[in-house]
Amino acid sequence: MNEESLKLSEKLVPSNYIHQGIQAKQARENTIRQLIQHRKLPECGWDDVTVEMFLQDVAVMDSNNFNGNCGVGEREARIYSSLVYKRHFGLGHGIGRSGDITAVQPKAAGSSLLMKLTNSLALDAIKIAGIKSVEGCFVVPMATGMSLSLCMLTLRQKRRSAKYVIWPRIDQKSCFKSIITAGFEPVVIENCLDGDELKTNMSAIKEKIALFGADNILCVMTTTSCFAPRIPDSLEEIGLLCKEYDIPHLVNNAYGLQASKCTHLLQQAARVGRVDLFVQSLDKNFMVPVGGSIIAGFDAGLVEEVGKNYPGRASATPSIDLFITLVSMGTTGYKNLLSERKELCKYLTERLQSCAVLHGERLLQTKHNPISIGMTLSNLDDSIPPTEVGSMLFTRFVSGTRVVAPGKNNTIGGHMFKNFGSHSDVYPFSYLTAAAAIGMTRNDVDLFITRLDKVLTKCKTDRTDRMKTQKIGESESSLEKSKSREVESEAINNSRTGKDV
Amino acid sequence: MNEESLKLSEKLVPSNYIHQGIQAKQARENTIRQLIQHRKLPECGWDDVTVEMFLQDVAVMDSNNFNGNCGVGEREARIYSSLVYKRHFGLGHGIGRSGDITAVQPKAAGSSLLMKLTNSLALDAIKIAGIKSVEGCFVVPMATGMSLSLCMLTLRQKRRSAKYVIWPRIDQKSCFKSIITAGFEPVVIENCLDGDELKTNMSAIKEKIALFGADNILCVMTTTSCFAPRIPDSLEEIGLLCKEYDIPHLVNNAYGLQASKCTHLLQQAARVGRVDLFVQSLDKNFMVPVGGSIIAGFDAGLVEEVGKNYPGRASATPSIDLFITLVSMGTTGYKNLLSERKELCKYLTERLQSCAVLHGERLLQTKHNPISIGMTLSNLDDSIPPTEVGSMLFTRFVSGTRVVAPGKNNTIGGHMFKNFGSHSDVYPFSYLTAAAAIGMTRNDVDLFITRLDKVLTKCKTDRTDRMKTQKIGESESSLEKSKSREVESEAINNSRTGKDV
Amino acid sequence: MNEESLKLSEKLVPSNYIHQGIQAKQARENTIRQLIQHRKLPECGWDDVTVEMFLQDVAVMDSNNFNGNCGVGEREARIYSSLVYKRHFGLGHGIGRSGDITAVQPKAAGSSLLMKLTNSLALDAIKIAGIKSVEGCFVVPMATGMSLSLCMLTLRQKRRSAKYVIWPRIDQKSCFKSIITAGFEPVVIENCLDGDELKTNMSAIKEKIALFGADNILCVMTTTSCFAPRIPDSLEEIGLLCKEYDIPHLVNNAYGLQASKCTHLLQQAARVGRVDLFVQSLDKNFMVPVGGSIIAGFDAGLVEEVGKNYPGRASATPSIDLFITLVSMGTTGYKNLLSERKELCKYLTERLQSCAVLHGERLLQTKHNPISIGMTLSNLDDSIPPTEVGSMLFTRFVSGTRVVAPGKNNTIGGHMFKNFGSHSDVYPFSYLTAAAAIGMTRNDVDLFITRLDKVLTKCKTDRTDRMKTQKIGESESSLEKSKSREVESEAINNSRTGKDV
Amino acid sequence: MNEESLKLSEKLVPSNYIHQGIQAKQARENTIRQLIQHRKLPECGWDDVTVEMFLQDVAVMDSNNFNGNCGVGEREARIYSSLVYKRHFGLGHGIGRSGDITAVQPKAAGSSLLMKLTNSLALDAIKIAGIKSVEGCFVVPMATGMSLSLCMLTLRQKRRSAKYVIWPRIDQKSCFKSIITAGFEPVVIENCLDGDELKTNMSAIKEKIALFGADNILCVMTTTSCFAPRIPDSLEEIGLLCKEYDIPHLVNNAYGLQASKCTHLLQQAARVGRVDLFVQSLDKNFMVPVGGSIIAGFDAGLVEEVGKNYPGRASATPSIDLFITLVSMGTTGYKNLLSERKELCKYLTERLQSCAVLHGERLLQTKHNPISIGMTLSNLDDSIPPTEVGSMLFTRFVSGTRVVAPGKNNTIGGHMFKNFGSHSDVYPFSYLTAAAAIGMTRNDVDLFITRLDKVLTKCKTDRTDRMKTQKIGESESSLEKSKSREVESEAINNSRTGKDV
Repeated sequence: MNEESLKLSEKLVPSNYIHQGIQAKQARENTIRQLIQHRKLPECGWDDVTVEMFLQDVAVMDSNNFNGNCGVGEREARIYSSLVYKRHFGLGHGIGRSGDITAVQPKAAGSSLLMKLTNSLALDAIKIAGIKSVEGCFVVPMATGMSLSLCMLTLRQKRRSAKYVIWPRIDQKSCFKSIITAGFEPVVIENCLDGDELKTNMSAIKEKIALFGADNILCVMTTTSCFAPRIPDSLEEIGLLCKEYDIPHLVNNAYGLQASKCTHLLQQAARVGRVDLFVQSLDKNFMVPVGGSIIAGFDAGLVEEVGKNYPGRASATPSIDLFITLVSMGTTGYKNLLSERKELCKYLTERLQSCAVLHGERLLQTKHNPISIGMTLSNLDDSIPPTEVGSMLFTRFVSGTRVVAPGKNNTIGGHMFKNFGSHSDVYPFSYLTAAAAIGMTRNDVDLFITRLDKVLTKCKTDRTDRMKTQKIGESESSLEKSKSREVESEAINNSRTGKDV
Repeated sequence: MNEESLKLSEKLVPSNYIHQGIQAKQARENTIRQLIQHRKLPECGWDDVTVEMFLQDVAVMDSNNFNGNCGVGEREARIYSSLVYKRHFGLGHGIGRSGDITAVQPKAAGSSLLMKLTNSLALDAIKIAGIKSVEGCFVVPMATGMSLSLCMLTLRQKRRSAKYVIWPRIDQKSCFKSIITAGFEPVVIENCLDGDELKTNMSAIKEKIALFGADNILCVMTTTSCFAPRIPDSLEEIGLLCKEYDIPHLVNNAYGLQASKCTHLLQQAARVGRVDLFVQSLDKNFMVPVGGSIIAGFDAGLVEEVGKNYPGRASATPSIDLFITLVSMGTTGYKNLLSERKELCKYLTERLQSCAVLHGERLLQTKHNPISIGMTLSNLDDSIPPTEVGSMLFTRFVSGTRVVAPGKNNTIGGHMFKNFGSHSDVYPFSYLTAAAAIGMTRNDVDLFITRLDKVLTKCKTDRTDRMKTQKIGESESSLEKSKSREVESEAINNSRTGKDV
Repeated sequence: MNEESLKLSEKLVPSNYIHQGIQAKQARENTIRQLIQHRKLPECGWDDVTVEMFLQDVAVMDSNNFNGNCGVGEREARIYSSLVYKRHFGLGHGIGRSGDITAVQPKAAGSSLLMKLTNSLALDAIKIAGIKSVEGCFVVPMATGMSLSLCMLTLRQKRRSAKYVIWPRIDQKSCFKSIITAGFEPVVIENCLDGDELKTNMSAIKEKIALFGADNILCVMTTTSCFAPRIPDSLEEIGLLCKEYDIPHLVNNAYGLQASKCTHLLQQAARVGRVDLFVQSLDKNFMVPVGGSIIAGFDAGLVEEVGKNYPGRASATPSIDLFITLVSMGTTGYKNLLSERKELCKYLTERLQSCAVLHGERLLQTKHNPISIGMTLSNLDDSIPPTEVGSMLFTRFVSGTRVVAPGKNNTIGGHMFKNFGSHSDVYPFSYLTAAAAIGMTRNDVDLFITRLDKVLTKCKTDRTDRMKTQKIGESESSLEKSKSREVESEAINNSRTGKDV
Repeated sequence: MNEESLKLSEKLVPSNYIHQGIQAKQARENTIRQLIQHRKLPECGWDDVTVEMFLQDVAVMDSNNFNGNCGVGEREARIYSSLVYKRHFGLGHGIGRSGDITAVQPKAAGSSLLMKLTNSLALDAIKIAGIKSVEGCFVVPMATGMSLSLCMLTLRQKRRSAKYVIWPRIDQKSCFKSIITAGFEPVVIENCLDGDELKTNMSAIKEKIALFGADNILCVMTTTSCFAPRIPDSLEEIGLLCKEYDIPHLVNNAYGLQASKCTHLLQQAARVGRVDLFVQSLDKNFMVPVGGSIIAGFDAGLVEEVGKNYPGRASATPSIDLFITLVSMGTTGYKNLLSERKELCKYLTERLQSCAVLHGERLLQTKHNPISIGMTLSNLDDSIPPTEVGSMLFTRFVSGTRVVAPGKNNTIGGHMFKNFGSHSDVYPFSYLTAAAAIGMTRNDVDLFITRLDKVLTKCKTDRTDRMKTQKIGESESSLEKSKSREVESEAINNSRTGKDV
């Protein structure tokens, strides 16, 4: 309703009531105005009403929603299904133009505004997460791996002769494949074993640089967040090396934005050394559905170049999801999530520690990994392969654990990896990992430990027969104490489903 | 409600009423069963209730929606905002796995099922559209340009030494950039002028093959759908050439799926010659929001390889949108849209023809272009640059026209294009294009012509003063006759907005 | 977004694009302004975007949606479930105040505005439907029957000694019960049989007035819309009588608003005689869910008094539904529905006529009933009771037919009705009725006739054995011709459900 | 998806993943089954996914949602607007039949099932709230006042000669009007002043019974929940009296279900004396939008009779809202809300007490009122009328306070009430009330006290000048301590709106 409408409304409803309503409406509009003005996360999160109000305002500014518009082009954001129309809030034009994913579309002022704001909010969120000197970023509707490829394809245009990517091994297919897809030769750097931790082998990197020659190396691609017992790469030292040899440094910060240890590494490496671009997943860091990532860097010009290399317009969905999520969280909400995660990581470590002890296992000592925790699986019944523990947990509705046992070799893109999954040719143990990721709850931890305890009990029955009889008694009483109401409710759920958990 | 629930319901509501309700429910379930069984478009489109019923069934099969699930991984499809949750129907895991965009996710049986079905439906739709011998395809959440890059990156792995892409000129940035981004050298083939039409210069292609050597050529990238006066490339002849020289043939079928002329070209080229992969936009062919494309081919193995080159999981949104749209259309609905488009193309041509004559212009004779139509802009008032016509139309809520005037040069990715936009260094006229694309309505055409007539009248006032006085009289009376109710309502809309249209 | 926000947006998106978006937004706001200004149905219906925009504006003006509001009363429109919140667009305060259902609530400026507008739109719709001189009305969230009771309870306050309600028999429970519930003694007037039609017995009414005395009669309650073979009451003559004797005249116009014959009767009766109040169902006339009615009259003061007799606030849902529906229809849409209904009534009559002839039945001649049509069921197989035809149709997914067979007596509120359902003690035939009501489609008619034909064929197999063999042949061929695509699709549906239709 | 579909799905997705998904689906279906089986609130509340799954199952069982249904009746639940369709989850048939609001509709098995379940859940909720021996109830889509009228209209049928309703005064218009509307003569019983409390005048009731004669009295209508300083009526003593004189006892339990004191009174009165029917508001007790109430009683037969007196079908909306809300709360959630309310009532009393002291006021001592609290307004600046405090609070976004000052007389339905609003001709003070109602939050209380403190400070500036200077200092420091984060955020909100709060 515009002012005239409100004035006319006073013929139907007394003006002081209308006036009160207008004030309330203006308060919301001011909230929106502040966002557009400052382009930062609001302190307090928005409620859904304000979010929808804004999205609606944005949508009616796109040409496909103009009343009386007639479209005579080949792409007019005509939408067939009303279900589809609704889920996109009427926004059909996507983001970007054929030349540049961060460019504005004449036909879609609203979508363009939303895209610009989202990129600004993303930048603010990266700063809040700890990378204060980030200079530019944009949301791209591709997963981390494809985004890393896009970064490499952009770097190629500056280093025509480069053929190699130096890559400290991290056993996650998509980041390895990002090199292959981009058309480069990966130079795999095996990790060093230091206590239980697997860490960057700096001298091997130096050797390879010497071997291939700096000019022939497109970039060093490092990793922050990873499964234990691997720890984040030595970003600072690599950053210094890249600076020294003038080699680009690309960082796979997949889910590292949620951990201050990772963001601190990035910030430091950029300060003292060199970081060109770093890529992070939207779903893993911001609790949105899978589908997008943020490509960021310390040189706004370079980031822009990457944007100009995405040929064509792109899905607005990851941007819309991120926009809604960030304004709904607000600074307060986002910071709370970050600190809760840190707390839960401690809690998970403690609970897992107790559980390990009860079953004759131990936690891997990987204090430099701020998210993932490993526990040995060394004392299972002989008939049970360690990976069975993962399956048993999954059928008991525990998702996300990972069991690694030596002996599994994989060939990816023509390269053979020994013991794939363990980040190392030689890691000595079988183990299970769990992660304390953003959005996890205390209840998740409690349920996990209860179910893990049951599974391990089952997997060790024969072997530790006598010993266990005693231990389980303890186990259950110790676990008993921490049983929250939610844990109890599990029993109810299970009896409902008739599962034997 | 399961059977037990329905049985128990008979204590509350007489069983014959319940029975009738069950029958109705079963009818819907059968509809769903048929889809899963045949994996083809249903004959009649589904209503939204059935669509939502199916999506809900699918969603509860994903682990993030399991009641009592506990997630201890780094990616558990936790969703922060309920608005975001709702718009994705609770589906958070995206599609694909780190190694393969068409792979199934253990955590997400529902999403995986939806993805598989969507790819099957897409294949069926391509066949319905006329490319009967297509063998494989998948939906990828990237725009056409980026998808073309992905195809080239995949081809590289088979042709390590190839450096060039032969590319008959089409003045659309993103397809040119797709070559640059993929890291290849474009070999631009200028089009031949034949009457008003711009068509493939076959001899130039042959020369270039001879010049660079077949092994050094990654592929020939051709185009079907394009703005007039360019016409679709000579796919059949190029296909034969590619077959002869063993060069891959990649086709940018951007919005060509909607026109039987384009699909026929593809089908023929594959039959007699060679087509490796062809890519089409989702939004332009299927009336969904921007964001996805279909990569398809005549060799299922090759298509699979492309899928395996997308590193990482990806957004499910384009797949969900396409799924909903295709089951909602059904075969009947989709075919109707295709034939209506063809009809409207005729109608648009006729109306534009009449309008052109009234203003001393003429239509470009480009009968081989099945979608886009051009009209000269040769007799405007001297003070008015042709491009002004486009702006004037846009401010009058006509979107999608394109005005091309000689003299605009553009440098893209280091290459200079003369008269960019006209597909040719030498096209002799200024002209305006309009397109009859899928989903357009008769009302769109009527509104367009009415507004174009007004704009042209305005642009020619001075020049044709005396002559026009007479002509406008005719014009209005002739246009008068075809004024539909909607056209009349335009007057109302305009007075509302205070625009001087 | 307010003006400041839009101004700030120009820093992110070029101002001419933003300007175009603003224009589009203003066009919608103007549409809304016009509604508030004129309080009449818009000529063209609104799209859902404008509807939602308006509802959102309205909602944020209610105190429960004020950001930072604190509620310390016993009714603060707190809403527990977000599903419930959403379905009410955040509107929780209902309509009316404790003293008056049409009063404005200080806490709910938005809801109050919506309620006032809806009542104005309802008044306009009644005029469009043909009752031009209606003076006042309001939507009440009660069904027709309870609303009639409320009218009678209001009339009581003016006629303290009145005990009787004169009521030409109409065999529909709720209107009879409305008299009982209101605490009055119904004086049932048996209808006269005139040809096939059952019509008002005027002389019986006069007798009863003489018998009980005008002062002791609360009102005459007449009926417009009804099942054939009853026809609308003689409103004009009764209106004259009521005027003469100074007896209030209350009209049950249940679904009569959709038929110009009924509205004309009302208009005439009010013009020449007397009509105090008339009540119509929302769901039956306006295609909204069951739950509300409109109480209207020719004296705004009396209508207001009825509103003041509803003690307490009330559900806003029927008002919201009606508001959305009327602005979505617009004058054009509503008028189209009315005229399509009239056309379909003819079509239904013709089709039913042909079907009747084929099966040795005939249509009841009830041309004064503009909605409902009756067909005899005189030649069924002896073993099949006529009501079985209704059941058979229902299990074949035909809803809404009514089969009446003599011999069913009902006692309602202490009164015994002979042959209940037939509106008459003495109606001579068994028959089936069908109605052409607003929103019906041609496809509904076609499906109905196809299925009726099958059912009748089945019900007459034995009896008409030889004769039929021949007739059915004809029947099918004749029906064949009119089979629309939809009718054909029925076969598909049925095979899906495995029903033997 | 039915079993066949799931089986077929295993061709696309490995069967163990599908199996896991099926298990998860079955768990939800079991939850639904339990509800239908036990017809009681589930222990744990359902999530929205399960709620929507159930509503969808229900909807497809109604004939208007049958695929291939053809409707040829006058009420087929055709719904014009898709917005309206969606908000009703496709349920269009309402509840009840023409004869009985609790009857089942053949056309609407789903809606009927939902209605039956909702009434059962409502009964369970009443028991949980403390009225263990309740025997029957139903949800009616009318506000409390109209529902009380319906109860009286039903009682009339058993007490034909009764003309009077004995009614201990409660100054809330709609309950008084419910008597007038039902056509009875209210016999107003002035309350007794006992300390600060206003309580039932038992001897006056007895006198009136003697005066009018028990047979001429339709019922005694008492009230539980009310604004302080009135307290709930002496239900037990009145119940005994009604039993003795065989007079029906109707209880207005408007928002009393949320307070165990009120439900205990009802339970006791029914146990030792007589309670026929009691009516409670849905919105005030169950946090749903305004629009419905529950009519309940200790004799299921009588409750049924009331249901049979609602003539016609009715809106399903209040039932749907209540259903969703109760299953979403679960027993646990509902009980938590009840106990939180009790806690907050204490907290509100304490905070209000401190605030009163600071401003030279005092709390009214009304410990028998479990919800509403009064504070004198005796020391305002002379120029400021007490009611101004209410307005000032309202413009500061505090809704729900009530200020009562002597001297306001009202005439309602022909009866004059002295000092209307104070429940008494003679109450000596001006005062303000606030209520601790279900769903209130601690933050509401904190905001209220902060704003009240500011308003009172403003209203007393002149008068208490010197004295205050000192007190405010204290006040602010004492209030300071309790400032929660939310209170602080108020400052932000206010600066946004530019209000001077």
